[in-house]
Amino acid sequence: MRSGRRRSAAEEARTLLANTNDGALGTLSDDGTPWASMVAFADLGDGAAALMVSTLAEHGRNLERDPRASLMVAHEPRELDQLAHGRVTIAGRAEAVTGDERARARDAYLAAIPAANAYERFGDFRIWVLRPERVRWVGGYGRMDDVEVADLAAADPDPTAAAAARAIDHLNADHAAALLAMARALRGYPDALAARCSAIDRYGLNLSIETPRGHAPSRVGFAEPVAAADGLRAATVELTRLARS
Amino acid sequence: MRSGRRRSAAEEARTLLANTNDGALGTLSDDGTPWASMVAFADLGDGAAALMVSTLAEHGRNLERDPRASLMVAHEPRELDQLAHGRVTIAGRAEAVTGDERARARDAYLAAIPAANAYERFGDFRIWVLRPERVRWVGGYGRMDDVEVADLAAADPDPTAAAAARAIDHLNADHAAALLAMARALRGYPDALAARCSAIDRYGLNLSIETPRGHAPSRVGFAEPVAAADGLRAATVELTRLARS
Repeated sequence: MRSGRRRSAAEEARTLLANTNDGALGTLSDDGTPWASMVAFADLGDGAAALMVSTLAEHGRNLERDPRASLMVAHEPRELDQLAHGRVTIAGRAEAVTGDERARARDAYLAAIPAANAYERFGDFRIWVLRPERVRWVGGYGRMDDVEVADLAAADPDPTAAAAARAIDHLNADHAAALLAMARALRGYPDALAARCSAIDRYGLNLSIETPRGHAPSRVGFAEPVAAADGLRAATVELTRLARS
Repeated sequence: MRSGRRRSAAEEARTLLANTNDGALGTLSDDGTPWASMVAFADLGDGAAALMVSTLAEHGRNLERDPRASLMVAHEPRELDQLAHGRVTIAGRAEAVTGDERARARDAYLAAIPAANAYERFGDFRIWVLRPERVRWVGGYGRMDDVEVADLAAADPDPTAAAAARAIDHLNADHAAALLAMARALRGYPDALAARCSAIDRYGLNLSIETPRGHAPSRVGFAEPVAAADGLRAATVELTRLARS
């Protein structure tokens, strides 16, 4: 049994951008100090991010003065050890877009951030598109990689990402025996005592396996990548069937 | 009945720093682009933050080259509209501290980030102290202020902050009648139909009051500021008694 593909760094980065709507913006203050602030953003699907920023806010004034910027987006919800979880920084230049490009960015932003409909009509907001020139993904301790901008643009976000947290809870709460069967039959731990799902994605699931010799991390791959948001259930049922056959 | 004090901007900023251990760091990349990345930090109690950063990480290399940096810290847990919640940016210079100062910063960091004990022994980590020179607090839409560095250093964090989310849930789940009594008797809404607690802090609580004329936000102040982490219960019991007397 293969342990299965893992998401590439580009897929991880695209998945973070596609499933999150706030992040930290880095801009340059007038004295040259890098300024970290919170922003909401909309994923534009190609690695770029749409921002709607007040010209009264420090980061808005900063962008007007110098368009160099970066956006750091982290996995939500925050967990106890945030550094163990994924985040990506896209760095490049923000452009105050106009015309069709502005309309597209604005529509994406208002769809992603419904609250913005209440203040968009105030005159001090400007639509920016931050286009990455350099991308760095960090998946946790010891997992990190640079991502080519073209690869980020071409990568598909994991369609199961929004359902993953619920699926993990459900598997651990209601399907402990199935997870144990996977550990025993598919991952070569015939003496496993228990197994918990620690992560799940379109390509498979991570197990934390309790054995008489201690805990072992492992991974079980799905037969096929899951193609739709609601596909995790069928894929794990199939793995369970395989483990018990 | 007074609506009660609200936390000052300096108190809000201190409370955020004291109750959070991760944030976004802004540093300068070698091409001058501001670089936003995730960091864990420890509050040093005077507005400064201790960081332990790998010299292999981009933000670590950036700090070695140029110590100008900022740290943005946001209210946790994230809520649906993150921009409606508090955050603070402290901007200044990071210093690679030595001697007693390093020992103090290291101890604070390891106490705040237990996971760091596992990797501190690797040789590539360096202890930095980021000292604010400029501080900006944003409390949500339309609530923001600059904070003097001396005021930040002097302000007390709200001792009830870590207990607030649980207290709000408890008041709304189990004490709706008490909240309604407060709205009717203490805030001048004798025809209030219902009231929910939307925020609570050492000085009082925010109510969202349903009336026949629509929703009204209001605030009820405690008789005295709550001085200890477990003091919210007694303060709200006292308000309830007052509302019913």
